[in-house]
Formats: sequence, structure tokens, C-alpha cells
Amino acid sequence: MRAEIIAVGSELLTPARVDTNSLFITERLNEIGIEVKTKTIVGDEPESLRTVLAQALQRSELVIVTGGLGPTDDDLTRDVAASVLDLPFDLDERIVQRIRARFEARGLRMPDINLRQARVPRGAVTLDNPNGTAPGLWIEHGDRILLLLPGPPREMQGMLETVVRERLVPRTGSRRIYRRILRVAGRTESHTEEAVAPAYTRWARGPVPISTTILASLGQIELQLTAQASDPEGAREALDVAAAEARELLGPDLYSTDGRTLEHVVGDLLRKGQHRIAVAESCTGGLLASRLTDVRGSSDYVERGIVAYSNVAKVESLGVPAEMIAEYGAVSEQVAIAMARGIRDRAAVDVGVAITGIAGPDGGSEHKPVGTVVIAVSRPQPSGSDVQVRTFRFPGDRGLVKFQATQAALDMVRRWLLETS
Amino acid sequence: MRAEIIAVGSELLTPARVDTNSLFITERLNEIGIEVKTKTIVGDEPESLRTVLAQALQRSELVIVTGGLGPTDDDLTRDVAASVLDLPFDLDERIVQRIRARFEARGLRMPDINLRQARVPRGAVTLDNPNGTAPGLWIEHGDRILLLLPGPPREMQGMLETVVRERLVPRTGSRRIYRRILRVAGRTESHTEEAVAPAYTRWARGPVPISTTILASLGQIELQLTAQASDPEGAREALDVAAAEARELLGPDLYSTDGRTLEHVVGDLLRKGQHRIAVAESCTGGLLASRLTDVRGSSDYVERGIVAYSNVAKVESLGVPAEMIAEYGAVSEQVAIAMARGIRDRAAVDVGVAITGIAGPDGGSEHKPVGTVVIAVSRPQPSGSDVQVRTFRFPGDRGLVKFQATQAALDMVRRWLLETS
Repeated sequence: MRAEIIAVGSELLTPARVDTNSLFITERLNEIGIEVKTKTIVGDEPESLRTVLAQALQRSELVIVTGGLGPTDDDLTRDVAASVLDLPFDLDERIVQRIRARFEARGLRMPDINLRQARVPRGAVTLDNPNGTAPGLWIEHGDRILLLLPGPPREMQGMLETVVRERLVPRTGSRRIYRRILRVAGRTESHTEEAVAPAYTRWARGPVPISTTILASLGQIELQLTAQASDPEGAREALDVAAAEARELLGPDLYSTDGRTLEHVVGDLLRKGQHRIAVAESCTGGLLASRLTDVRGSSDYVERGIVAYSNVAKVESLGVPAEMIAEYGAVSEQVAIAMARGIRDRAAVDVGVAITGIAGPDGGSEHKPVGTVVIAVSRPQPSGSDVQVRTFRFPGDRGLVKFQATQAALDMVRRWLLETS
Repeated sequence: MRAEIIAVGSELLTPARVDTNSLFITERLNEIGIEVKTKTIVGDEPESLRTVLAQALQRSELVIVTGGLGPTDDDLTRDVAASVLDLPFDLDERIVQRIRARFEARGLRMPDINLRQARVPRGAVTLDNPNGTAPGLWIEHGDRILLLLPGPPREMQGMLETVVRERLVPRTGSRRIYRRILRVAGRTESHTEEAVAPAYTRWARGPVPISTTILASLGQIELQLTAQASDPEGAREALDVAAAEARELLGPDLYSTDGRTLEHVVGDLLRKGQHRIAVAESCTGGLLASRLTDVRGSSDYVERGIVAYSNVAKVESLGVPAEMIAEYGAVSEQVAIAMARGIRDRAAVDVGVAITGIAGPDGGSEHKPVGTVVIAVSRPQPSGSDVQVRTFRFPGDRGLVKFQATQAALDMVRRWLLETS
């Protein structure tokens, strides 16, 4: 089946915005063996959308349109689609009720313009939207399928998953695209490539050929392994073998072969060892705690976090001696260690983590430039030191420094837990 | 002038790759008043490119194609373009020499396939590529301009800058595009539209016409105002007037007319009033503190944050009475108020904020379903209560609930500061 994707929205034609919905859609379609042949982005203009949509329906069996299903004047996807296919509209009372109920649950009156979202081209199947007011539409027209989905990713994604499972899988053959994501911390893209490249050719020439893509962003390296096969078992086995080989080549730098994020992997290690963690953050301002608690069920092992942004807070809520800050500075290994021990002690947990640094753009100095971050982890040890500390210098702007610092902190915790589990 | 962009390359149709060339091109075109009306991404397939290119030339005066100018078999842009415009090829000896010299400079022989890059559709102007072998092509055909640029950003960008300066600016005159972003909190997309829509037509018909786009995501509503004008002063004034009108229509729900984020606006209000803030978070797990400290210079007013994830942490580090938690539950207005007063008191600041709730997917109950969040703000008041508290029910998954809760908390702080400043 040949698919194409049309993203609707004038904002997607500005320099600052990129259509990311199509990446998610492509991934889901690829998984069931459907390749995407063309992607188009059009503004909120009926004429542009009309010509693009008409042409797409001529050359592709499956056309997916995202965006333009909202209640406002510039939401024109529904109207243009009905007009291109020459379908009249019916008002779906069930949808009116649902939208009204959504507003009422929030104590609001449904504005009249939302009635537009209940207009359904005749013959179309409406798709429930649990995360918003705009229903999706599935329209079969001759041998063509037109799928209209809302633009907000959170609304689009769940709806697409359902459509893939219930409507597309039954139509596609048994050939599928299988992907495995391997995640790496603690080495650069080139060093990852250097280590793994020798295996690429072997993987590509195996009985189930696997292609490899390496991606780097924000201090995270990802290896994508892709296998095309009609036999799921065979594909899974081949990917398992490749992942195991990668693990040998990369050692503990490879932290995930099943799509789990670093915070998820750390969380699983904490739960498995029945540890509880507490964190003390300065320059990351709560991002480490926020990432740890992004994981479902993290209340099992996250006890608390202290964002000790001011020096007074470091003294009062973590017990860092004021003289220590005066002597070594707030960004120092001494202070990081005191913060990690302080939070571990006060929260009565067995893993304490501390981050202190200069996120920038202000506050840097010659010896401690912007991007300098000190991270300490403290754990009770039968022998040896109860603390590990490292000083990093991260490139990039404030947001990037914050993210990389939390990534490094999570990775320090992970390695220490691995070594001792 | 109406422009569209076509990106050629099968790799741009995989889930992991996004076309970023078009963002750069859009920015440069917008600066000289050219709007981009459509963007298309096609794979390395002659038929797809042919139909897309033919249609683009029908509807747009300027068509820019990136990619597919290399020497290999799957580089087909040159051939397809010549065929669509029905132009014969000439071999440009000057280009042959230049490519040969490039190879020789690196001690290499020029492979024969590179000769393809020296084939020029008759009448086309070749554009020098200082960073690679593929020259660009500028083809005027009737009232249409077709510009072919190489795909690698480093090669494309310099070439485009030259074309803009030497060839496009003389045609576009002084007309430019000016944008203004307005941000809204505390109302839905439809309620924003209802309030502002009456002004759309007036703005569109003013001496400097302004078009409006409304965007909604994650509990944030954005209005993009776009003016086209040849007079920068006039454009700025018209946008100022429109922004002022929007402010009248939306009241304090409009929090930003200059691109500042909500955390930035709150930060500026705190600084202006010489306030200091401290936050106590449960279900948002540090995200509120992290957003506040995303703003440069936020150490001026952020004192500390406590992520009191466990009940013990709420008792120990915020002074919430254990009996209160037992009686009302951790997610209750009583506990939220105690947390807000607790953090304000312990951090000795004048603004204390607390968030407690159920981010899900676990932990919900009939009376307090997933998405229930209680937010309290505490401030010393000469008269009246020192605390404001609200209970919300946010839709969506864990990440969405966390974000919306921080957005609502920032907005409560903003409104209270506005009322009393």
C-alpha cells in the first residue's frame, strides 16, 4: 500500500515550526509494512489544500491528513475533504453530546463554533478523540482511503494507533518492518560508530537483513536497527542477536535495548534493588526530579527532591556548611558531596544525588566557565567511599546544559547500581 | 511572490529524519517578503518528483528544490526538472574543469559519474558551489523561477544567500513579513477565538493587513499575527495596535505579546515587585521549579523548591501535619494550603506555591480521578486571606497532566501578582 501524509497549518510554513506528526505516523505505518511516498505541508488555505489533496488521492491508496479539524474559521480540512470527494455533511448528534459534556465537565458552556466539529461527511466513520474535542474521520472512497486526524500530537497519536490496529493491519500483508532502539550514554557518536561499525555488514547480510542508523542528539546516542520480515519470530531473533552483539561491543555504555529511557532504566534498577532515591539540585532546578518522576510508578522509589537554588537553601535544607560554600564556591566537588550526603541523610534514603553547576548564560568565570557542572552520588558502602563525584563541562545553551547534567547524573547512578547489584 | 519548496530524498521519508533545509529557506524568503505556501517531501523516484514539480510550477512563481543534484543514480532532480520544462541538456565544460580540479586537489581522479553534474538544462544559470561538487541551477521559464539547490545544508545555505541577495531581492522590492506572537492562558482555543474573531476582519482590512493564526497545544493558546509591509515602522505600529486590541478583548488572559513564555512573564513580575518565590511540588515532581529556572537570571527570585513526593517528605520538609494528610488525603485543598504556607515560611519568601495531585496512570479513585490537581498560592496580605487555592481536573496522560498543572500554577501566581502590583 502506498501512503502519503499531508500536514495542514500555516504555522507549519513558518521558519520556527516543523511537522513532527509525520515522523510518528511514518513509524507506525512502516511497522506494518506501509511505506510513505510523499509528505506535503500546506497552509490554512482551501485552494492549496484542495489541489494537494486531490492529487494525493490520485496517486496514493492511503492519504493521511493531520490538522485543520478544530472548531475555528481556519480549520478547513473537513470542508475541503468533503468537497474534493463530493460528499454532503450530516450533523452527528452523538458528537455534539460528547463535546458538550467535555466542556461541562470543566464547568464551561460549549461555544457554538464547536458544532462544526460534529459535522460528518456522509459515509465517513468518526474516530473517538479521548484527548480533545475534534473527532477523526475515516473515509473510504472507491479504492482510496482518506484518514483525517487532529493536529495536536497527543490527540493524533492514540487515534492513529487505534486505526492502525483495527483498520490497517487487517489490510496489509504479513511483511512488517521491525525496529529496535538501542540507547547509549557516556560516549560520542563517532566512538559509538567506531565500536559498532564492524557489525553493520554482518547484520545487513544475515538471513534477516538488518539496517542500522545512528542518531545523536542532546548527549543521547541512539542506534536504530531495522529488519524487514514476514516472520515476526525470525525478525525478533535476528534483532535479539544484533542487540546482544552491540552489548558486547559497547559494554555498560549501552543502557537500553528495549526503548526504555534512561530515567526508566534507573527507576527499574532502583526498584529491583529496593532502593529509595532523593535528589538535591541547584543548576538543573528540578529537572532531575521531574525526569525521575516522569516514569509511571516512580513514587515507589522517589522520596523527595530539594531544589536548593540559593546558597541559603543549600545550607538550610541540605546542611551544607556556609563556610564550605564561602571557601570553595557553590559549584565545587566539596559542596556537591555535601549536598548528596545532606539529601541522603535528611530523606533517610540509600541513594542521594546532587547537581551543582553553571547553566548560563551568566555566572561563568575563567576557572568555572558556563557549562561547568559537578555531580555527586552518595550511597552507604560496606567498604570504600560512600560518594562518587565528577566534574563535567557541557556545551550548549542553558536548556542543553540542564538536560545533559541530568543525563550524566542518571548515568552515574545507573553505573553504580549496576556495579553493585 | 508565491514560493514553494520541494525536498528530494528517500531518507527524508523515514521516521527519524526531518527536512530542516526548508526552515532555513523559509526564514530567508520571509525576510524579503516572500511567503512559502507549500512544502513537499518526495523520495528518490522520478515519477513522484515529476508530478510534484509540475504541479508546483503551475501554482507558484518560485519553486525551490533541494537535494538530488549529486552524481549518483538516485540523484534525479536535474533530469526530472529538464524533462518537466522540456529543455535539452548542454555539457558545461567550465563545470567539468571545476569538478576535476576539486578531485585533483585531493589527489583523486574525477569519477566519470561526476560528469552528470556538469550537464546544464539549456538557458539555466549555474550557481557556484564553494562547498561541494554539485552546482545549483537557476532556471527562468516564462513567469516561473525554478531554483535547484544541493541537499547538504552547508552547500545549500551559502548558495541560497547569494541567490537571495543577487537575484531575488531585486524582484521583491521592499516588502517584508513581520510576525508577533500573543500568548493566552486560562481559556480554551474556542473561547479565545470567540473573543478575538471580531477583530480578525478589521486587522485583515487595515492599511497594513494583518493575518491571524490561532494555535493550541498543551493548555497554551497562541495567536500569530503576520503583517506584510514595505515600511517596518508602519508594520510595527499596526502590530502594536492589534496587540493592544487583543489585550482589550482578552483581558488578563493575554499574558504575552512579545514572545515571552509564561515562566518568563512570571519571572519578570516577581523581579519587578522584588518578590522571591519558593515552590512545593508533589505530582509535578520538580517540573514547576525546572520551568521557573529555565529563565535566564531566575536565581534573582527563585529561592528553592521542595519535591515532596512521599507523605513523609510533606511532613518533614514542609511541616504538613500527618493527621491532616490522614484525614483529607495528600491530594486535598487543606494539604495544598499547608504545603504552600509551609514552603513560604521555611524559605522565608513572600510567594509560596504548592501543587499536589494525581498524575496517573495509577492512583486515581472515584472522587479523585487521575488528573485531579490542587494548587495553592500563599502570599502575605495586609487584609484578606493569605492563600488562594483551586482544584483542577486535567485531561491527558501523565506528562500532559504534569505540564498543565505547572501552567495553571504559573498562571495563578501571575494573576495574583498583577492584581496587587
